[in-house]
Amino acid sequence: MSYLDLSTEDLKKELSKLKSEMEEIKALELNLDLSRGKPDKEQLNLSMEMLNTVNSKSILDAESGMDCRNYGGLDGIPEAKQLMADMMGTRPENVIVGGNSSLTLMYDIISHAMTDGLLGEKPWCQVEDRKFLCPAPGYDRHFAITEHFGMKLIPVPMNENGPDMDVVEELVSSDDTIKGIWCVPKYENPMGIVFSDETIQRFANLKPLAKDFRIFWDNAYCVHSIYQNEETDIPDIISECEKAGNPDMVYEFCSTSKITFPGSGISAVASSPANLIDIKGFLKYATIGPDKINQLRHVRYFKNIAGIKAHMAKHADILRPKFEAVDKILNDELNGLGIAEWTKPNGGYFISFNTLKGCASDTVTLCSKMGVAFTPAGATYPYGNDPEDQNIRIAPTFANMKDIKLATKIFALSVKIVTLEKLINKAA
Amino acid sequence: MSYLDLSTEDLKKELSKLKSEMEEIKALELNLDLSRGKPDKEQLNLSMEMLNTVNSKSILDAESGMDCRNYGGLDGIPEAKQLMADMMGTRPENVIVGGNSSLTLMYDIISHAMTDGLLGEKPWCQVEDRKFLCPAPGYDRHFAITEHFGMKLIPVPMNENGPDMDVVEELVSSDDTIKGIWCVPKYENPMGIVFSDETIQRFANLKPLAKDFRIFWDNAYCVHSIYQNEETDIPDIISECEKAGNPDMVYEFCSTSKITFPGSGISAVASSPANLIDIKGFLKYATIGPDKINQLRHVRYFKNIAGIKAHMAKHADILRPKFEAVDKILNDELNGLGIAEWTKPNGGYFISFNTLKGCASDTVTLCSKMGVAFTPAGATYPYGNDPEDQNIRIAPTFANMKDIKLATKIFALSVKIVTLEKLINKAA
Repeated sequence: MSYLDLSTEDLKKELSKLKSEMEEIKALELNLDLSRGKPDKEQLNLSMEMLNTVNSKSILDAESGMDCRNYGGLDGIPEAKQLMADMMGTRPENVIVGGNSSLTLMYDIISHAMTDGLLGEKPWCQVEDRKFLCPAPGYDRHFAITEHFGMKLIPVPMNENGPDMDVVEELVSSDDTIKGIWCVPKYENPMGIVFSDETIQRFANLKPLAKDFRIFWDNAYCVHSIYQNEETDIPDIISECEKAGNPDMVYEFCSTSKITFPGSGISAVASSPANLIDIKGFLKYATIGPDKINQLRHVRYFKNIAGIKAHMAKHADILRPKFEAVDKILNDELNGLGIAEWTKPNGGYFISFNTLKGCASDTVTLCSKMGVAFTPAGATYPYGNDPEDQNIRIAPTFANMKDIKLATKIFALSVKIVTLEKLINKAA
Repeated sequence: MSYLDLSTEDLKKELSKLKSEMEEIKALELNLDLSRGKPDKEQLNLSMEMLNTVNSKSILDAESGMDCRNYGGLDGIPEAKQLMADMMGTRPENVIVGGNSSLTLMYDIISHAMTDGLLGEKPWCQVEDRKFLCPAPGYDRHFAITEHFGMKLIPVPMNENGPDMDVVEELVSSDDTIKGIWCVPKYENPMGIVFSDETIQRFANLKPLAKDFRIFWDNAYCVHSIYQNEETDIPDIISECEKAGNPDMVYEFCSTSKITFPGSGISAVASSPANLIDIKGFLKYATIGPDKINQLRHVRYFKNIAGIKAHMAKHADILRPKFEAVDKILNDELNGLGIAEWTKPNGGYFISFNTLKGCASDTVTLCSKMGVAFTPAGATYPYGNDPEDQNIRIAPTFANMKDIKLATKIFALSVKIVTLEKLINKAA
């Protein structure tokens, strides 16, 4: 029965019962963690054979004949461009393959926009009221980059189809100090939703007032389904922007961080020919080139996109039960109480959980007191400020199944206690 | 007999003879290259076993217990800090180990100074007449980074002890828009000289007017002797700056690009505790961390600094005959003519060659017509502008011995022809 329909007396009775559970848990002095969007050891083990692919007997020439052991090749080897293009669903001639972090590519491009400007436009460091759109809940490290560079962060509401495009269209067409927007189009962090085709069309057809407005399209989870029969190929944003006459408006990113090894993967950016020339224009100062041997290691291990997909099916087999366990416990503990909603994603690394308004921070704090760490409430919003204080990001990948189950039960208990206290206070 | 003592008639006779040699060489349609400061294939082969050090059977935990396959560790693993510190002759607690390129660390720090400022000082992008000192002849990619960020490049003369410190001291103590200086203290590119202890002391004791003046101490060739008995450990600039009360004034860099594989090596920066905090302050936005598996790969292969030194002795055995062959041919062809000087370095990757004034560009152009590529004359000076047009960088590492010998002979022929023409014109 929904908490919202209970009398104050019944709420107090329920609270009293749950608090004694809480005390028992506190006594256990647990140390659990559902905060980290990291692969677990079993997932990392899936890629160990890749380390044998390149060894002292290997001929380390790329298809182009270039010796990958030596200097040269600013934009990656051709076969790596092909593989990363296939992951993103775009064309290799639109791709630069970088180092071990797509976040670095994003940071570097924004840093370049700050000091040099994009395609001849004014450097962003000279734009006093520069702003960036941040669909929220979203990824805190995206927001942090733009905050670091002195941008005002403008939250944009998310719905089940992606960012609220009415808001996006209105804002970008009326203010030339809005320089970009962060997007995770597939299995968005943290909601797990996939942008609808209509949303993607509307993105491609934006009419921004700023010539140097850019969509940062972080396709971080492009092949990261957790259901093997789930095929959610989204339209290629590079082609869609071209067709719409906006070829230079988007940078798309991906990496193998959550495919092989975080920190030892390869990354890529896709964009228009003009933007690629612009990017290489600063990369030639910023680097001697990417780690081409690691690019070879990846390509020779996977061979092609089919190899990647087969590999991702193994990741899915590890992750699916974890996501399902969290969902089942949340259902068992919270369904029908009228105090919570959460997503049931088909891929990605997170479940997005909403409490009643004003309950998220206290829930995370109480979890911490019971020995379970969550990402701080609000982290999924610009400046860490969730105006409704209701969103919590659950990361069920890194912990083992036993810990996940226990942590989720404690989480649900925490949600109930905090909500009951709020309801009782409100009634008083 | 010196060309300078010959009659015009004798000069013309000599020129005529050399020009017929030139025509014979042109007819060969050669395609040789002494421009590239790259290791050759034999050098690259020295490190192939490193690729076996990390394989599917390896436990990839760092000494700290961190799983190097996963996220985490912004500043590198402890054992890599130790190894890179030992290479630079400084302490591991002063070291951050980065990705595959020390040039990237330099670029990133200057980019950070541009947009954020260093230790609370004004961002360099707001300093209108920002300037950088460029000891010349020096490394063109250093100069290019600061030119890219809109700095005025001020050349500083080099002598056999390093940069002219009278000039450096005078400039930095009188102008607070001078924000830094590029240095390659050991086997300088291209001169091959090692900074004297006195030069290094004077660097550590600089009294710059700008609080955010920084020495960019690129110790790129710290273990790159070509004579095995040559031990040129220079004083530790980090400690020297500390002792002089200037702990924050220097960033030191090194990498394994010319030890293992260019592009697939590891890099490091050493600096004061305050500067390291400042660097990590932007790195946390710019990256998910360095490739820790590649750090492990390097540490486990070399084990310690003794392992590096034994490995570098093998490089030396490959490089020494090449340097000596160039020197011998230059001696055979040019000694006593009074028209050229060149360095005989004990390490590094280059020989620095000076023609008479005004002859360098024409010499490189004539070499090109005879099928031998050199780095463009002037490239070793800020803006590619050698005011005396006399310096040429010779890179004898990448080509095979046969090509090196032929290319150097053609180079010497080219020097003679160009100089003779100048002398004849001057006499006319």
